[in-house]
Amino acid sequence: NCQPQTECEAPKKDDKKKPSKTAQADEKRKLEGLTNNSPMRLRMEAFNKRLQAEIAARIEQLDGQGKFKVDRWNRVEGGDGISMVLQDGKVFEKAGVGVSVVYGMLPPAAVAQMRARHPAIGASGEALPFFATGISCVMHPHNPNAPTVHFNYRYFELGAEDGGEPISWWFGGGCDLTPTILYEEDAVHFHRVIKEACDKHDPRYYRDFKKWCDEYFYIPHRGERRGIGGIFFDDLEDKKQDELFAFVQSCGNVFLDQYVPIIERRMDMPYTEEDKLWQQIRRGRYVEFNLVYDRGTKFGLLTPGARIESILMTMPLTARWEYMHEPDLKAHARLMDVLRAPKDWIPL
Amino acid sequence: NCQPQTECEAPKKDDKKKPSKTAQADEKRKLEGLTNNSPMRLRMEAFNKRLQAEIAARIEQLDGQGKFKVDRWNRVEGGDGISMVLQDGKVFEKAGVGVSVVYGMLPPAAVAQMRARHPAIGASGEALPFFATGISCVMHPHNPNAPTVHFNYRYFELGAEDGGEPISWWFGGGCDLTPTILYEEDAVHFHRVIKEACDKHDPRYYRDFKKWCDEYFYIPHRGERRGIGGIFFDDLEDKKQDELFAFVQSCGNVFLDQYVPIIERRMDMPYTEEDKLWQQIRRGRYVEFNLVYDRGTKFGLLTPGARIESILMTMPLTARWEYMHEPDLKAHARLMDVLRAPKDWIPL
Repeated sequence: NCQPQTECEAPKKDDKKKPSKTAQADEKRKLEGLTNNSPMRLRMEAFNKRLQAEIAARIEQLDGQGKFKVDRWNRVEGGDGISMVLQDGKVFEKAGVGVSVVYGMLPPAAVAQMRARHPAIGASGEALPFFATGISCVMHPHNPNAPTVHFNYRYFELGAEDGGEPISWWFGGGCDLTPTILYEEDAVHFHRVIKEACDKHDPRYYRDFKKWCDEYFYIPHRGERRGIGGIFFDDLEDKKQDELFAFVQSCGNVFLDQYVPIIERRMDMPYTEEDKLWQQIRRGRYVEFNLVYDRGTKFGLLTPGARIESILMTMPLTARWEYMHEPDLKAHARLMDVLRAPKDWIPL
Repeated sequence: NCQPQTECEAPKKDDKKKPSKTAQADEKRKLEGLTNNSPMRLRMEAFNKRLQAEIAARIEQLDGQGKFKVDRWNRVEGGDGISMVLQDGKVFEKAGVGVSVVYGMLPPAAVAQMRARHPAIGASGEALPFFATGISCVMHPHNPNAPTVHFNYRYFELGAEDGGEPISWWFGGGCDLTPTILYEEDAVHFHRVIKEACDKHDPRYYRDFKKWCDEYFYIPHRGERRGIGGIFFDDLEDKKQDELFAFVQSCGNVFLDQYVPIIERRMDMPYTEEDKLWQQIRRGRYVEFNLVYDRGTKFGLLTPGARIESILMTMPLTARWEYMHEPDLKAHARLMDVLRAPKDWIPL
């Protein structure tokens, strides 16, 4: 005999929606202050959030007009995120930088999938605690002479109970440039800066990850790549955690050096209506890649309760699909050649 | 000892790329002229092509300016297609009507998938000859008061060697309306005309297929439907072939009655910049549904050698993605209510 009735009912499934012990302990660690001995989770999260703030500040300054709208969100199960989007600026049609931090349980099916690539994950058939933090960024400028840019760096951890070592952990990420009009010097610059960052950590990284990038951003139904590449890597666990973290930091830290000089020399160039139309067609291909093939987007769309506006903030503001469109101008067709057969912009 | 060397080699895989015996015999039948006793393949193909021509003529007349570009294509393995696209017309931003006819071999994995829904298909583990013909149509008008419309009707046949009966056959299809601004009278009219067509054949069809349509065009990551529905059906084999063909013909034949009165009363209505912006946002959702969920589009994108421009002619000419967009106007928000909770426009 109890009032109100709901209190008599069986415990709700929502009981699952409490912060994990790891998430709670990490909150405490953050209040105490991080050191180089703090768990990688917290160090990568802090790096992501610092880099996000730095990039947003520089891009806002560069735009001179648009302001980033900042949305912060929290997950009951542990973790949070910050989405920053600048829309309809002077230089940028849309620029987004997002950071997410997720503590959760990975269902058995997803664990089994990951086991193929990470043999340390045993075949227990049970759900495992996981952690993921990532920074991702997409910038679409107005001027068709200025390329769209994207990067993403992330850290993943599986099976760590608080205080214990994870069963498996890895880093992933990459950066890539998507021009509407090809300027070889821009492609060379973008690749050179990231190659220098890679070379400090491993002489094979740039060569391997440049190739991986060309493969990843392929649009099979078009027979072309999304852009002129950069680097892409995933499941990176072949060195000590600190060494790989240093590598990922190097990559993230050179982003502004990779992109700002390019945008500065393109953002005020004159362009024609034909250039703008061509840009809109290429934006359509960008949408096709993101919605049909991009792993991160697909994973996000299929995740119940995911914050859809944060996932789709990578979409261009506008896009266009013309039936049987072929580039008229040589300057436009030149881009297609390198999207169909990727080029080595600098010696490998 | 033979010259040239290639003639000594094993038969090429390309040997598969000959017209099937069925396709060859059907070509002969077409030359001899069709009757009510001709195979359903040929009768449905003829219906599709006649309907396509009728619709294109009426829509061109209605547009008064744009002309359909007509592309015909042939498949070596048998079959052909006609893609008709009107772009940048006076009334229509983009209007496409396509017919395809495909003779081919269905790989064992795809056969196994179909067996779940069509038990007559045995578990031979072998590839089976298949045939498919369909008509599909999407029209995107300029005026945001005028809705986008889509329909598709198709016939599928599995395992028919020439002269023999297929192991399994079925019809599928449907029609649906996607307004930017909701006019209830348009929704009621669109549904009433297709209900009348359904009622002539089976009193349950409209009710069942209306519900199926609301389910099919759901965009889970948005929690909304693409539009205000219509009908959707698949794997229809519950009556004699002639009866179902008559049903599908009724549906196809009323399309112009469903849509033309709506477009005529909306195409010259005044609209604001806000209406146009809202239309572009809704076009973005249309793209999301088509690229992420639509069975036909996904099947097409994954089919090697498919004619990509025919598959993606359903895409709007232009689309827009704004971060955190919410409709400002009540007239726009009213649409969202019915996309989130579908309505019975007429008594079921």
